[in-house]
Amino acid sequence: MHDLVEIVEVGPRDGLQNESKNISVKDKILLIDKLSNCGFNRIEVASFVSPKWIPQMADCDLVLNGLTRNESISYSALTPNLMGLEKALLSQVNEVAIFASASESFSKANINCSIKESIERFVPLMKLAKEHSLPVRGYVSCVTDCPYEGFVSPESVQMVASRLIDLGCYEVSLGETLGGASQQQIEVLLENILKYIPAKQLAGHFHDTKEFALENIKIALDYGLRTFDTSVGGLGGCPYAPGASGNVATEAVVKLLKKLGYRTKLDEESINLVALFAKSLIGK
Amino acid sequence: MHDLVEIVEVGPRDGLQNESKNISVKDKILLIDKLSNCGFNRIEVASFVSPKWIPQMADCDLVLNGLTRNESISYSALTPNLMGLEKALLSQVNEVAIFASASESFSKANINCSIKESIERFVPLMKLAKEHSLPVRGYVSCVTDCPYEGFVSPESVQMVASRLIDLGCYEVSLGETLGGASQQQIEVLLENILKYIPAKQLAGHFHDTKEFALENIKIALDYGLRTFDTSVGGLGGCPYAPGASGNVATEAVVKLLKKLGYRTKLDEESINLVALFAKSLIGK
Repeated sequence: MHDLVEIVEVGPRDGLQNESKNISVKDKILLIDKLSNCGFNRIEVASFVSPKWIPQMADCDLVLNGLTRNESISYSALTPNLMGLEKALLSQVNEVAIFASASESFSKANINCSIKESIERFVPLMKLAKEHSLPVRGYVSCVTDCPYEGFVSPESVQMVASRLIDLGCYEVSLGETLGGASQQQIEVLLENILKYIPAKQLAGHFHDTKEFALENIKIALDYGLRTFDTSVGGLGGCPYAPGASGNVATEAVVKLLKKLGYRTKLDEESINLVALFAKSLIGK
Repeated sequence: MHDLVEIVEVGPRDGLQNESKNISVKDKILLIDKLSNCGFNRIEVASFVSPKWIPQMADCDLVLNGLTRNESISYSALTPNLMGLEKALLSQVNEVAIFASASESFSKANINCSIKESIERFVPLMKLAKEHSLPVRGYVSCVTDCPYEGFVSPESVQMVASRLIDLGCYEVSLGETLGGASQQQIEVLLENILKYIPAKQLAGHFHDTKEFALENIKIALDYGLRTFDTSVGGLGGCPYAPGASGNVATEAVVKLLKKLGYRTKLDEESINLVALFAKSLIGK
């Protein structure tokens, strides 16, 4: 198994959208431009959701139009529906991401429809993306635990992930949304899902609520996963809870990978500097 | 250590307020009247919060005025503030309950103030309750885990619980709000808190999200706790997620206690019948 690991930087999107402090367009662009010089292949920079839901993402188009594009980087945006995709296309993203929950209750609570309905809604979006030759990534949330249901079965995760692949997603990122999964839970999950989807089509997306993320990334590496989503400076958390933890920090994962003997294309020193900048933005 | 365990029935309040289906005043009264014949000493029947927050509790006064009081039962209500207490007094409750979170982030997210502020706000309420010789019970939520912060330290739980006792609460109920605490977490929590507060002033309040509640009650029994909050029929969950789990079911705890050789004053057969009725109310 190869030792090159790709880190997908999601701080400007998954990180910032969960920060309570409003960040200016200028600072968002500055953050992304700094990240563009660190060696990433993919940076998720925006979310074309209704600004009513997530005010922090209301200026996505301005951010995307203002940043200095690095030709070797794919700048992506989360698009919850066709309207989101249309906006994302206008802003010339390089790829988009769609998402579904592996927990029925979480799906109902967050997007007010069943898992099945939520995935079927993406059919027209996938069609339009294909017409524009736009790569689509899939996210599955709550892959081990749901705040309402408790344990989520690996079978539901596998079914949702397979459906996203069938729809045309080139990769599925497994979101450990609550950030409290035990190592055993991750093992059981991957054991199951790898019977159906090869490791190269999977990414690990761990939140660090209980500080289990690094241990769980180690397990995912053992299972052959080589792509992980992280957030520079550990950006993220809960908009209602200042100081709450969010995505695992990019710099912590880079350090871990180096220690474990894996390679990345990232420049550690640059990442550490951007991490300081990211923290200063949110006053951490 | 004695073998008599008290079950505090919280289904009509903590259970129903988290059910998405609206239950009529008539049915709420019927539920409480049925519970009044089961042998409970305490039933929590209402929550005098703003109906804007929790519509299910908007008719609390009608419920309290409509129920057939059993003289040997203390009917209690949750009162988040002085206005709530004033309304509860008008409805002639026998006791009230106040609450604080052991997690700073959860406090910020749910009641928009720090833990310290949230407790200080209860000072005038405690004064008025004392003037009316009304017993006040305290709840601490998130005693092991917080959805935003992850692990909650036993020290914060102990400090909040001690502060509630100092303010005049006759008992503090330890709320395992997320319902996913491991047995070890409960052990560490109780080990710590029992250094400061005697077991007879503590109650265990376990949600059953991951179906750990019965195991955790067993541990609490080993540590000397003899009071537990439960919800008949397992009423409760999340208003946005039909089918999500809530409080541990009264009937399950009664069965467990019997198996373990503990006594309660409850009539098991009556409880089981009310559980069926409770489930029929919410269509479970």
